[in-house]
Amino acid sequence: MSPIDRRGFLRAATVASLAATGAGTTLLALPTSAEAQAAAPPAAAKGVTRTLAKYVVGAKYEDLPATVRKEGLRTLLNYIGVAVGGSHHETVDNAVAALAPFSGPPQAGILGRKERFDIMNAAFINGVSSHIFDFDDTHLKTIVHPGGPIVSAILAFAEYHPVSGKDFLNALVLGVETACRIGNAVYPDHFDRGWHITGTAGVFGSAAATGKLLGLNEQQMIWALGLAASQPVGLRESFGSMNKSFNPGRAAENGIMAALLASKNYTSSNEMIEAKRGWAYTISTKQDFKEITEGLGTRYETSLNSYKPFACGIVLHPALDAAIQLRNHYKITPDQVDHVDLRINPLVLELTGKKTPNEGLEGKFSVYHAVAVAIFEGAAGEKQFSNRAVRDPTVVALRVKVIPVADPTIKTEQVEMTIVMKDGRKLSKRIEHAIGSSEVPMSDSALEAKFADLADGILPKAQIGRLMETCWNVEKLPSAAAVAKEAVQA
Amino acid sequence: MSPIDRRGFLRAATVASLAATGAGTTLLALPTSAEAQAAAPPAAAKGVTRTLAKYVVGAKYEDLPATVRKEGLRTLLNYIGVAVGGSHHETVDNAVAALAPFSGPPQAGILGRKERFDIMNAAFINGVSSHIFDFDDTHLKTIVHPGGPIVSAILAFAEYHPVSGKDFLNALVLGVETACRIGNAVYPDHFDRGWHITGTAGVFGSAAATGKLLGLNEQQMIWALGLAASQPVGLRESFGSMNKSFNPGRAAENGIMAALLASKNYTSSNEMIEAKRGWAYTISTKQDFKEITEGLGTRYETSLNSYKPFACGIVLHPALDAAIQLRNHYKITPDQVDHVDLRINPLVLELTGKKTPNEGLEGKFSVYHAVAVAIFEGAAGEKQFSNRAVRDPTVVALRVKVIPVADPTIKTEQVEMTIVMKDGRKLSKRIEHAIGSSEVPMSDSALEAKFADLADGILPKAQIGRLMETCWNVEKLPSAAAVAKEAVQA
Repeated sequence: MSPIDRRGFLRAATVASLAATGAGTTLLALPTSAEAQAAAPPAAAKGVTRTLAKYVVGAKYEDLPATVRKEGLRTLLNYIGVAVGGSHHETVDNAVAALAPFSGPPQAGILGRKERFDIMNAAFINGVSSHIFDFDDTHLKTIVHPGGPIVSAILAFAEYHPVSGKDFLNALVLGVETACRIGNAVYPDHFDRGWHITGTAGVFGSAAATGKLLGLNEQQMIWALGLAASQPVGLRESFGSMNKSFNPGRAAENGIMAALLASKNYTSSNEMIEAKRGWAYTISTKQDFKEITEGLGTRYETSLNSYKPFACGIVLHPALDAAIQLRNHYKITPDQVDHVDLRINPLVLELTGKKTPNEGLEGKFSVYHAVAVAIFEGAAGEKQFSNRAVRDPTVVALRVKVIPVADPTIKTEQVEMTIVMKDGRKLSKRIEHAIGSSEVPMSDSALEAKFADLADGILPKAQIGRLMETCWNVEKLPSAAAVAKEAVQA
Repeated sequence: MSPIDRRGFLRAATVASLAATGAGTTLLALPTSAEAQAAAPPAAAKGVTRTLAKYVVGAKYEDLPATVRKEGLRTLLNYIGVAVGGSHHETVDNAVAALAPFSGPPQAGILGRKERFDIMNAAFINGVSSHIFDFDDTHLKTIVHPGGPIVSAILAFAEYHPVSGKDFLNALVLGVETACRIGNAVYPDHFDRGWHITGTAGVFGSAAATGKLLGLNEQQMIWALGLAASQPVGLRESFGSMNKSFNPGRAAENGIMAALLASKNYTSSNEMIEAKRGWAYTISTKQDFKEITEGLGTRYETSLNSYKPFACGIVLHPALDAAIQLRNHYKITPDQVDHVDLRINPLVLELTGKKTPNEGLEGKFSVYHAVAVAIFEGAAGEKQFSNRAVRDPTVVALRVKVIPVADPTIKTEQVEMTIVMKDGRKLSKRIEHAIGSSEVPMSDSALEAKFADLADGILPKAQIGRLMETCWNVEKLPSAAAVAKEAVQA
């Protein structure tokens, strides 16, 4: 077939290609098809990529508010915990086996393991590990999980190139700002369309954070963002397979690649985020560029990062929070329970209505199991959603006593639980916002408990303690590489 | 901001995320937003990814028609020529400098150079080199340049793992089939939207071809295609910068990554191409899945691959063809020429109307320069679009004598040229389809001349001859690695 269409005209797209051949002229701006023009904006935004790059290049650790620094530390701690926790999953074993023959010098550690890979392959694997349990941090406005793409990249880089703890934390925050602001600009349309936003927005965060540590100038940072824009990762259809964890890992790696190339003056467009045939218009039907460019250095998305206390979908968190609070307050044991009345939003039952889960993963979709195991074990971590847990006779006996009632007047953030005891007592708890939400964030000690539980069995207890200390104190370290060195198996 | 919207409902997208958390259940199929549903098809296609995977896994070299094998060889030859030709461009120097410290073992050669990188980094660099001059092969139905993503991948792989010449050629064809068929399914909407289709469709070709050489089974091939789908590369806004050549390079590399992971049972979805939140619906407004699944093994897109005889946009090719034919037939020298009358489609003047180019790249957008240099030098290769050529006094003197007239009755594929000689002769030529089009493909000897011109100054003449022989005879080779070994500097 020739590039001429049935009406005898050169295809519009072909015209653009011709114009672009050996490009670099204004001919590139020629219109393509009528459809594409209709979808394009009347007046494009200007300088979005440059404004963001300028901010990232200029921003200093000293400029960060104390609350933002603190949230950065919590992001780091949570990331290390989930990455170590996931590091021996079959997903990671497969990835390590596949890539080991091709890795470069042993520049950076694989968290929770003994292998060392070049920084790009190490960042990939660590990003995969961090997402295995869907237990990583969440920027709730966009459902971006920023830790995986960003911390994986800069932690590996910090093992290759000296980075002070302060610079490391600054880069972490700037990476989160970059990823989440770009996420804000296109969410929810972009996500609804099918993109795994952690991989598509995350790659910008990795590039910005790594580029910051590489000392890129403004032009190079623009190119790094452009090369990042060229490498979105992840579709929602991958959810439910190992491919889901691939996405934050590859986003971390792609961002490093972009920053390294830019550092050697490998060029890109200066308007890759905002141009008509650039990232935001190609990849999303919504573009709110002000989310990227306004309030830089004053409004911090990092402050909104949250951490899951429970290793399952957020929709179950209010019920788990209620169950654990009642259990701990009244020291309830399963044998004392007659039944559990639970008023929940209809959506909870729709999403987690599985009555007789037999696999650990199925337990995450069973409000019956979740409430039962939480009452029995006082927790809802990865171990409570294992095959062992869903088959535990005590849990199985208790889960049939959980009686959920869908009530549209109960919001998804809320729950009303009444545990009716065999002795006749009715012990009730109403939750307005579950622990882990923006309104009721996890405490530092709760984050530590989650971390210790995840790392248990992978790193020695003493090392786990030292590692958490190292994370909390990273700002005081001459080299942030200490975090990575504490997070691997001896 | 909470995941609850203003009406008090949990965001649709959040619901999907919740459902997907720790996924692997049918809950994943829950609807998301009304908008997204409206855009989605009423009934999704079934088994597209599996059908394609099954074909690639089962297809044998012996099944290939002779004409298809021959076009595969021409694709190989053209690829090697353009990759060697571009290999010392600043773009490649920058990429090599950026990646050298991180490359794995020296498993594969960088074409036209001395460095050796691991197969993924080598494939990346070679893919970049192949696209530098926009002189690579073109599947005109989709504007996919299949050589870069696919041959870069399998040639590097063939240096790492023994691959017979026949298996190599079979994988090359299967890679081209995969990339171009997937391109057909979404072109032109996908391209119009802003994607550099060589990078987005090309990654599937690289994954399929590399996966074929890895001996993946059907399930693994499905996963390889799924992991490829997760890594589209390239936006059209990158055109005009080094980022454009990045795209086929990274597509080659991403495809290898996908195939390697799949070979170790790193899983993906079974319906990544066709699912509602999979590749085609997320990345394009057009989905014609029959283009992927129908006629496999009988209709070959590889047969439609074409090669540019001239190092500029296709729109100039008819005029160049006419100029060179007249010049050679009548042995015209510039001093004999009074003026050149040229009737061309209005689009040609619109796209290439630059009258006084001063940089080589500008020459590609000047019909005046192009015709003049073609009459003077009898060629229009990369050297004819250099700074040297556009500033050559003879060419400058001749280009002002080129008088193009826009004529809507002349199709873009056509041209009418009359060279009016000082002695009064009027030498005319009408072109219906330029050399290099599907209708008038370049001859093997013309491909060889192009190759020799590109490799000149990079490889010794004797080696260039041997290298072309090796390409033509790859089917007889016990190891396809011989091609790569002949294509590097000693």
